[in-house]
Amino acid sequence: MIIILKESATDAQVDHVVERVEAMGLKAHLSKGTYRTVVGVIGDEDKIRTAPLGAIAGVAEVVPVQPAFKLASRTAHPEPSIIEVGSGKVVTKIGGGHLGMIAGPCAVESAERMDEIAGAVKAAGANLLRGGAFKPRTSPYSFQGLGEEGLKILREVGDKHGMPIVTEVTDPRNVELVAEYSDMIQLGARNMQNFVLLTEVGKTDKAVLMKRGMAATVKDLMMSAEYVLSQGNSKVVLCERGVKGFDNATRNIYDVCAVPQAQEMSHLPIIVDPSHATGRPELIPACALAGLAAGADGVHIEVHNCPEEAMSDGPQALLPEQYAELMAQLKKVAVAIGKTF
Amino acid sequence: MIIILKESATDAQVDHVVERVEAMGLKAHLSKGTYRTVVGVIGDEDKIRTAPLGAIAGVAEVVPVQPAFKLASRTAHPEPSIIEVGSGKVVTKIGGGHLGMIAGPCAVESAERMDEIAGAVKAAGANLLRGGAFKPRTSPYSFQGLGEEGLKILREVGDKHGMPIVTEVTDPRNVELVAEYSDMIQLGARNMQNFVLLTEVGKTDKAVLMKRGMAATVKDLMMSAEYVLSQGNSKVVLCERGVKGFDNATRNIYDVCAVPQAQEMSHLPIIVDPSHATGRPELIPACALAGLAAGADGVHIEVHNCPEEAMSDGPQALLPEQYAELMAQLKKVAVAIGKTF
Amino acid sequence: MIIILKESATDAQVDHVVERVEAMGLKAHLSKGTYRTVVGVIGDEDKIRTAPLGAIAGVAEVVPVQPAFKLASRTAHPEPSIIEVGSGKVVTKIGGGHLGMIAGPCAVESAERMDEIAGAVKAAGANLLRGGAFKPRTSPYSFQGLGEEGLKILREVGDKHGMPIVTEVTDPRNVELVAEYSDMIQLGARNMQNFVLLTEVGKTDKAVLMKRGMAATVKDLMMSAEYVLSQGNSKVVLCERGVKGFDNATRNIYDVCAVPQAQEMSHLPIIVDPSHATGRPELIPACALAGLAAGADGVHIEVHNCPEEAMSDGPQALLPEQYAELMAQLKKVAVAIGKTF
Amino acid sequence: MIIILKESATDAQVDHVVERVEAMGLKAHLSKGTYRTVVGVIGDEDKIRTAPLGAIAGVAEVVPVQPAFKLASRTAHPEPSIIEVGSGKVVTKIGGGHLGMIAGPCAVESAERMDEIAGAVKAAGANLLRGGAFKPRTSPYSFQGLGEEGLKILREVGDKHGMPIVTEVTDPRNVELVAEYSDMIQLGARNMQNFVLLTEVGKTDKAVLMKRGMAATVKDLMMSAEYVLSQGNSKVVLCERGVKGFDNATRNIYDVCAVPQAQEMSHLPIIVDPSHATGRPELIPACALAGLAAGADGVHIEVHNCPEEAMSDGPQALLPEQYAELMAQLKKVAVAIGKTF
Repeated sequence: MIIILKESATDAQVDHVVERVEAMGLKAHLSKGTYRTVVGVIGDEDKIRTAPLGAIAGVAEVVPVQPAFKLASRTAHPEPSIIEVGSGKVVTKIGGGHLGMIAGPCAVESAERMDEIAGAVKAAGANLLRGGAFKPRTSPYSFQGLGEEGLKILREVGDKHGMPIVTEVTDPRNVELVAEYSDMIQLGARNMQNFVLLTEVGKTDKAVLMKRGMAATVKDLMMSAEYVLSQGNSKVVLCERGVKGFDNATRNIYDVCAVPQAQEMSHLPIIVDPSHATGRPELIPACALAGLAAGADGVHIEVHNCPEEAMSDGPQALLPEQYAELMAQLKKVAVAIGKTF
Repeated sequence: MIIILKESATDAQVDHVVERVEAMGLKAHLSKGTYRTVVGVIGDEDKIRTAPLGAIAGVAEVVPVQPAFKLASRTAHPEPSIIEVGSGKVVTKIGGGHLGMIAGPCAVESAERMDEIAGAVKAAGANLLRGGAFKPRTSPYSFQGLGEEGLKILREVGDKHGMPIVTEVTDPRNVELVAEYSDMIQLGARNMQNFVLLTEVGKTDKAVLMKRGMAATVKDLMMSAEYVLSQGNSKVVLCERGVKGFDNATRNIYDVCAVPQAQEMSHLPIIVDPSHATGRPELIPACALAGLAAGADGVHIEVHNCPEEAMSDGPQALLPEQYAELMAQLKKVAVAIGKTF
Repeated sequence: MIIILKESATDAQVDHVVERVEAMGLKAHLSKGTYRTVVGVIGDEDKIRTAPLGAIAGVAEVVPVQPAFKLASRTAHPEPSIIEVGSGKVVTKIGGGHLGMIAGPCAVESAERMDEIAGAVKAAGANLLRGGAFKPRTSPYSFQGLGEEGLKILREVGDKHGMPIVTEVTDPRNVELVAEYSDMIQLGARNMQNFVLLTEVGKTDKAVLMKRGMAATVKDLMMSAEYVLSQGNSKVVLCERGVKGFDNATRNIYDVCAVPQAQEMSHLPIIVDPSHATGRPELIPACALAGLAAGADGVHIEVHNCPEEAMSDGPQALLPEQYAELMAQLKKVAVAIGKTF
Repeated sequence: MIIILKESATDAQVDHVVERVEAMGLKAHLSKGTYRTVVGVIGDEDKIRTAPLGAIAGVAEVVPVQPAFKLASRTAHPEPSIIEVGSGKVVTKIGGGHLGMIAGPCAVESAERMDEIAGAVKAAGANLLRGGAFKPRTSPYSFQGLGEEGLKILREVGDKHGMPIVTEVTDPRNVELVAEYSDMIQLGARNMQNFVLLTEVGKTDKAVLMKRGMAATVKDLMMSAEYVLSQGNSKVVLCERGVKGFDNATRNIYDVCAVPQAQEMSHLPIIVDPSHATGRPELIPACALAGLAAGADGVHIEVHNCPEEAMSDGPQALLPEQYAELMAQLKKVAVAIGKTF
């Protein structure tokens, strides 16, 4: 950590900074420049990271040099992690060259519809089935999901088609229930900094799909992953699904560069979700291809066989035949960059 | 609601749109332009709002004309709401000309410190005491708050100084506990779209301080308020505390224009929190004055008597004497615009 | 165009809107809903587009339904344009399946350095050589480019290696000079809405590389292209190079989704510039691959053989050997999606 | 300047960094931490600022500690500057407690209209008259201004009403012409980084109104002011007029906190322009009051006596009577904070 003092800092203020640093068991190394004094902190940055050094009189800026996340960091774990989703014979691996191709409707609506969609996406090459049973909706008057009934349907359909399943949890009181039915638990974008929920999910042994919040930096995403990891659950897969931008022609701005950034910082796999990032079916194929080419460890796509009747997010779903066509293109690009699914 | 069709829309597609609208019990009114057909939907927009009309083939855009929030909307309730916080003799009113001046440390740290700070801010004119007992922290390794012990301290100190108290809740399982001790429950920015938590808080009879999320539009804030109101709790006070911007010289970008926007849309009071919006003490006074002049129904400021020892957000706290000086200026501006506190 | 009136609009206000529309030679079609009246404007939207209809009392919103750009729009020109850069035997085509692979240093520094870099990027497969002679720098104290001397060097080196050249113009008084030496004129991001400069460049017959401004929507980019096209120059190539975002870990946020959006709106080719979008060499390869996979008509990369001595933007340049390695990967992805360079 | 090396940096890389620093005539001071080496650069940062140190192998980050702008900085000039606009008896001072209240229509449309508006705003207390003769419009098909004819009208009307005048310049070839007619030259938001234009304007002796670009940080604004100052023109007034944000309910996001930030960094006055920042007349009064209370040295408002006939930006103009009412409120707040106009 480096503490940069103000030009106006007095000697007494510099001394006080040094004193505070040493009181925390670290060493301070002074560097007096022409205009400013800089204090280099020597020792384990963890001891001092949460101390409010910026509040000390005379301090202009505090520059950390160690990442605040440890378990998620690549420094601690140089090889990419491979996360196994599912159990027994039905396992999908994500990371380290293995691609997680997740598809399904936004919400579980009925057993018949789920079955039809699952059959179609499986045939197209998907290896993980998604569907929401608990839906976080911006309006209290919108469809909130089928709850446990939805979980049951998803489990049965997943088993029938031999696909591990992923579904969202929104309530810490439901984590056990959702974990019981599913292979992978989704933490939605709006809950990426719901630390209570993160902690509960971290106590399960299920794989976790952690979506990046719309106002979260890539580093924020790492800190949220750290919450889950710090509880003992190391099976976290990250997901880029768009951040807030100024051009409202798309729902969010799809930050494909989060993929190489996350892979540089962390050993955890990262997939992309162009459905939520763009919100517009006609833009999804190009963005899916972009994500895969950028090195993503998988692609998450919403698919519905009758979008105009969908109970949630219909306008952004691909039709099964559009998904199949996209998957054919994705396969070619995967081969070109030395991956397969 | 207005449905704009694509230039390429066929007659059959137009007919299908009309059919879908009528199937939902509304009337469709066609307007054929030189290039495009537009369908005006006549009747109660609520019946159709959540239908995925944008997913119908041939539809280019769906333009709603009624707000999706009803209870929070000014249309439904033209007069500004006045929210009472506290009970018995210790009541602070917010809205309709009454200013809620909230102050206190980020976190409750100890009874002594809380008492000292409370005495100072009360003397300076604050009429609501804040302090966090459950802290949502971006790092799992940071101080997470004193929990129930913190609630007890805050309650005692508030009672001693004759100030209603406000504190944050982060877990739906703790809502009852927090409601038992406090006069006003804070929903933090990172939980503005934690709909499970919103619903639980809506079931209490306590006043609610709802902070705007960093990626939330003013309309999103209204939708979240609607969640609380729809559960029967009408005592919601909104709070602008900064949104994500590209200039990282401040923690967030302080959107003072959210104040007149919220007041145009809604009857609910809105206050400003320049402490979290800027994250820099030297910018807080100017932003506090700006918020009040813009018409805010109160100002929320973090105050600490020893920021360099604060267990949370020390670098952004004002000292008690800085707070007193700011309050003297705020009083003058309040008088100039016909308000008092 | 659709004019949505306020709920409170009076009959007289509705009549006045109709009157204004008809005075401009268009027809107004009234649609009275349960809560609001909507006026559909029938006829050529161009006649009315710039009229301040939103300023009429009682008007809530004005929704255009025709794009404000005509020459750039795909409606007017359904087939993708193929832009030829260069003349005689040294021609590079961009668009319609042809990829423009632009490479070179940020600034022209000397004939020797330019020659070395040109040889290296040509060998790696680049088909257009870049180098700045007039540099727009945020600091008045930074190197501003070699001026005409730089143009001469670039021309000579381009001719020697058989590559058309592209260089930036920043001053309307220099457009003729730059046009004389170069094959393609670059309009930089900071000048995307320098309408005076756009107009002058539109009067030349050179190809134009128009970079998206950091605060420009894709539609804004189209409007700026329209400026050039409206002067008679139809040889415009668009370029995505990052927009402002809140995560300062990268210079800008790379909006790869601008590629399919631009191609949906316009017949003009669009390339990507991951060098300026990210500002970090280690992220450039992934973003370049993403852009190509998303359908971009080319890739623009800054290459320097000694970045630590570069006179401008050194830290974001790739080394020639890094560029060659990237180009090998780009070729594979190009083949996978049916393109070549 | 502080140069932070990567954890993986070799001794040879550290040596090379030191060598480069010393080759530029500065001293390097090494600080070896537990995990990283940090190089403090001692001496005048200007000598090294533009060197691409970030491109040296092993360097992780370069942290400047001196502002890159000198003439604009408060360090160089601790007292606030007072800028005089106009000459002879008709002078308006801005800064150091003097408020510049600028008003007028977006564009000069005719002598009669200009005269009527000028009379009204003068009566309400405005002390500077604005009106555009050269309009930068996003569409090539929109009204582009009356040119020199507009300048003549503005000059005559300003003289008649005893108000200095401010008008925009967009073309470096017109700077002399605009300087001849006007008292203050406006550099528009889209031209804030048109360095060619900045340089030409810096050669005149007229006051300059420099609007913040929509993608510019406050520091970027300082760098652009530095361009003008470095040419010898020290009469720069800054203007906050909104930056890009994600909530499209307003045209831009009004960054009132730029006011105290700019005043901390610089001695130059800064005013606010809520007309362009919000684009919505109903939000302008609250934002104008906020700006003044935040310490702005003036307020810029667009006023038109018949917005529905305005040739540019009609929907955001206040009516003369709305302006008069706002000015009465602004006067009260000005008094409350110890200022007058």
